[in-house]
Amino acid sequence: MSFIKALIEHLHLRCNPAITEVASWTLGLSQRLEENSSLVISITLMVTLLCICMVIGHLLEENRWMNESITSLLLGVCVGAIVLIFTKGTNSHILEFDEEIFFVYLLPPIIFNAGFQVKKKQFFQNFVPIILFGVVGVFISFAIISLGTGLTFPLFNLEGLGVRDYMALGVIFSATDSVCTLQVLNQDETPLLYSLVFGEGVVNDATSIVLYRVVENLDFSQIDASAILQTVGEFFYLFLSSTLLGIAVGLLSAYVIKKLYFGRHSTDREIAVMILMAYLSYVVAEVLYLSGILTVFFCGIVMSHYTWHNVTESSKITTRHTFATLSFIAETFIFLYVGMDSLDKDKWNMTNVSVATSIGICATLLAFILLGRAAFVIPLSAASNFASRGARTRITFRQQIIIWWAGLMRGAVSIALAYEKFTADSAINATMITSTILVMLFSTVVFGLLTKPLVHWLVPPHASEMETETRTLGGGSEDLNFHLLNEDESTCQQNAPTANTSLQRSSSAVHHVWRTFDDAIMRPLFGGRGFVQYLHHSNGQMQNSFASIPDRH
Amino acid sequence: MSFIKALIEHLHLRCNPAITEVASWTLGLSQRLEENSSLVISITLMVTLLCICMVIGHLLEENRWMNESITSLLLGVCVGAIVLIFTKGTNSHILEFDEEIFFVYLLPPIIFNAGFQVKKKQFFQNFVPIILFGVVGVFISFAIISLGTGLTFPLFNLEGLGVRDYMALGVIFSATDSVCTLQVLNQDETPLLYSLVFGEGVVNDATSIVLYRVVENLDFSQIDASAILQTVGEFFYLFLSSTLLGIAVGLLSAYVIKKLYFGRHSTDREIAVMILMAYLSYVVAEVLYLSGILTVFFCGIVMSHYTWHNVTESSKITTRHTFATLSFIAETFIFLYVGMDSLDKDKWNMTNVSVATSIGICATLLAFILLGRAAFVIPLSAASNFASRGARTRITFRQQIIIWWAGLMRGAVSIALAYEKFTADSAINATMITSTILVMLFSTVVFGLLTKPLVHWLVPPHASEMETETRTLGGGSEDLNFHLLNEDESTCQQNAPTANTSLQRSSSAVHHVWRTFDDAIMRPLFGGRGFVQYLHHSNGQMQNSFASIPDRH
Repeated sequence: MSFIKALIEHLHLRCNPAITEVASWTLGLSQRLEENSSLVISITLMVTLLCICMVIGHLLEENRWMNESITSLLLGVCVGAIVLIFTKGTNSHILEFDEEIFFVYLLPPIIFNAGFQVKKKQFFQNFVPIILFGVVGVFISFAIISLGTGLTFPLFNLEGLGVRDYMALGVIFSATDSVCTLQVLNQDETPLLYSLVFGEGVVNDATSIVLYRVVENLDFSQIDASAILQTVGEFFYLFLSSTLLGIAVGLLSAYVIKKLYFGRHSTDREIAVMILMAYLSYVVAEVLYLSGILTVFFCGIVMSHYTWHNVTESSKITTRHTFATLSFIAETFIFLYVGMDSLDKDKWNMTNVSVATSIGICATLLAFILLGRAAFVIPLSAASNFASRGARTRITFRQQIIIWWAGLMRGAVSIALAYEKFTADSAINATMITSTILVMLFSTVVFGLLTKPLVHWLVPPHASEMETETRTLGGGSEDLNFHLLNEDESTCQQNAPTANTSLQRSSSAVHHVWRTFDDAIMRPLFGGRGFVQYLHHSNGQMQNSFASIPDRH
Repeated sequence: MSFIKALIEHLHLRCNPAITEVASWTLGLSQRLEENSSLVISITLMVTLLCICMVIGHLLEENRWMNESITSLLLGVCVGAIVLIFTKGTNSHILEFDEEIFFVYLLPPIIFNAGFQVKKKQFFQNFVPIILFGVVGVFISFAIISLGTGLTFPLFNLEGLGVRDYMALGVIFSATDSVCTLQVLNQDETPLLYSLVFGEGVVNDATSIVLYRVVENLDFSQIDASAILQTVGEFFYLFLSSTLLGIAVGLLSAYVIKKLYFGRHSTDREIAVMILMAYLSYVVAEVLYLSGILTVFFCGIVMSHYTWHNVTESSKITTRHTFATLSFIAETFIFLYVGMDSLDKDKWNMTNVSVATSIGICATLLAFILLGRAAFVIPLSAASNFASRGARTRITFRQQIIIWWAGLMRGAVSIALAYEKFTADSAINATMITSTILVMLFSTVVFGLLTKPLVHWLVPPHASEMETETRTLGGGSEDLNFHLLNEDESTCQQNAPTANTSLQRSSSAVHHVWRTFDDAIMRPLFGGRGFVQYLHHSNGQMQNSFASIPDRH
């Protein structure tokens, strides 16, 4: 339970005098800059790099290999190297990776946006395989990596690692980073794949973080059946209560905005309330020691289903794009940040292992990552196929390969957990951190570069999947309003079931019950598509409220 | 030049164990919360309070007296008092006011939004009175308050204040906070007044901060003609170079977005680039020791004139609302923050003056503020009226009273400068800080409460001003697109001059030259209304790019 305990002493971007030197050298303003604060310089540098990433990302959008994550990561590494050269090897880190910044500021917008933009129907339709991959999969991967490292690492003469450390390694290297793959997959062309990879990614993040906390709090002195049962119980308690909190905050926001009708006076207030309550759900969960990630994800889902329909038209457009943009900036920032941190000389100096051993450790870890993931994707896909037995959500072998590949990248969550676990105060801890960084760099860059070609080879672009999935959303020919208003069309229409297996029918029945309940009780209370009265009778008022925006200076 | 030197050690919200206590008391979760981090709890508290402010602000929108600034400030004071009671008087500050957070994170969005939303035509039409009030006015007010405090404060037996301190006081209490008044004035009903108060507010902030730096760096050992001339020169150098930097960054953003056409792939990238470059202009100015406020203000103006027209339709709506919302949240945050900080017990304990003396000091300061402002509003209005001599921009006596009143409130800039100058390490410094807080509280709450009635009495609502100002913008009956597209209508049409004085004609001629230059060179290069090619020939592409948004998870 001490997850955030160490996190938060101060949230400053820890800066380094070296940047001041480099910056002054570059700009020829040494005298002035020496007096200047390093925070402002760090911010300037980061914002400049973010802008460069945006431009490069745009230019490489249609490139065969690259994607934005790799661009940002490599740019970060390059800048780290430049600083290292300019300071003649004395210093490299412009910023030190701070788990706190990651967990408090960068992760919430990404996960919230994931929930907000998810296509709800597909997500819930594939709920079973998503939960299988995201929860059961993490446990399998965790077991394999923990066991594997526990058995092989002693061969490298690594000293100082205990059972808890191996279990922590298991969690750290089970946390995937599927951003890279999602940048390549197309939600309209391959809805099933996208939904699976995306859903697993979010659930995986949450599971890993919850599991990490559980591992950290395991009492090895008294492991018996009741202790294990209690641990499992705690795990499910965290999962359930976090989800309920997220739903509650989302519904509260919908109710407040519907009841008070903020748009009457100012659309800005609507937008502000949505942003603030979304963030509130995350921090409240963290204060209550729940899983902020799960909370904010479900808050996002509820907000897009109810709250979003209760605001004015311009607020709809604004929130949708603002959340996406914030998430986008946060993602880019993370990769840049990790890239810049990866060349931190202090950590590299502290490890006392040889280059060969270091490579050996990384290779071992990568091997167990590959193995651990294969060990659950294939059996669990089979289980999911057996359970559904409909053509609709059947996972083909090609798709299994993509799902396997999509989760091989290790990213910011792994790094953050590694920093949390292995504070760089001893040689062995420094070795674990540098190994995590190397695995992250290698998996993101090498596996990442191969992702586009692999996906294009296995799922040729612009060829629809082999499924009978009815595509209610067109490719991209709707106009603005149509698109926004029909976002949830698929949720609102009862698609005729195309496969009539028993599970299909029962799933359809559950959906029907939910729809009836939603229409009869939830929507009248919390708003939602078609239940917002203002849109009809107070058109003039709405426009009035919009026209008042420029009045707020 | 050492303005930000002390600012930036770390940017953490300095927290206090007391919050943890209160929070745990309230929630009955003492055990868990004690382990928890105070940062997350502080954030939760602040976000919750922000939400409450939004709701109260909405409910009081049509109230005769209150406005959002006062609500936030009073709520902040109340929360401070509650904490004080719960901790039995041992502690009160939930957050300590940190000038750094203010200058680095809260001020930039407010000022940028000011530039972005300003009606450019009115701003530049009233450029002369705005500069008179904002620059010359600050100097007059500064001189009167400095002299006044220098002559009267020794009567209170205050020891330890030197010439530099009195000059600093002059600057601190010349920095106005017109947010309060702007919430009351209506841009469409009273365009001249709004434009003057608004323009003066921004220029005043910039002038005060620049003047503060100049005062801090004055070398009293060798004051002669050349030193004074150098100081004046430096002042204008700062003003001019900051403005040029802002324009340059704004034009760069316009050029990049127009040239690369980000919207082709992702609207999020356009929005991200606009937000990042806006912030970049501020931090670059600070790194170069220029005035970030002026830079980001002019960057906002240029961005709304060029860049904004180069992005896709949904990006237009999103950026306009996002900037307004960010500014709105930042404003509310500041007032809450200042309110909570005002009951900080340590500072009150450190001052060794009696209550009577304290009231005397505040009354003296308020008297000089009232006097100092009257001393420039009336003569400078006369000067402005004499110079323009047209009915169009004539400032009537009633309007002069409103302008005088609008600048009586002291706000966050004063507080931030006071903290910067008087670090609470001695009794006299603590006294100066508590006096600043008292003056701020009194002026914002008492003067603020009287603002709505005063404005409604002097300028009856829904009655247009006595001017012949052509109102190109209707009251609020346009639809969404019309409104957005015609925002700059007034800039684009040559209004027939209604008064034919020589100054009017010359101003019109300047405007004509600018329009010709803008149409012939600037717009073709940097885009702008009517010069964005994509809107015409690549409609399909645009929609495509829009439709791709949900693909970014």
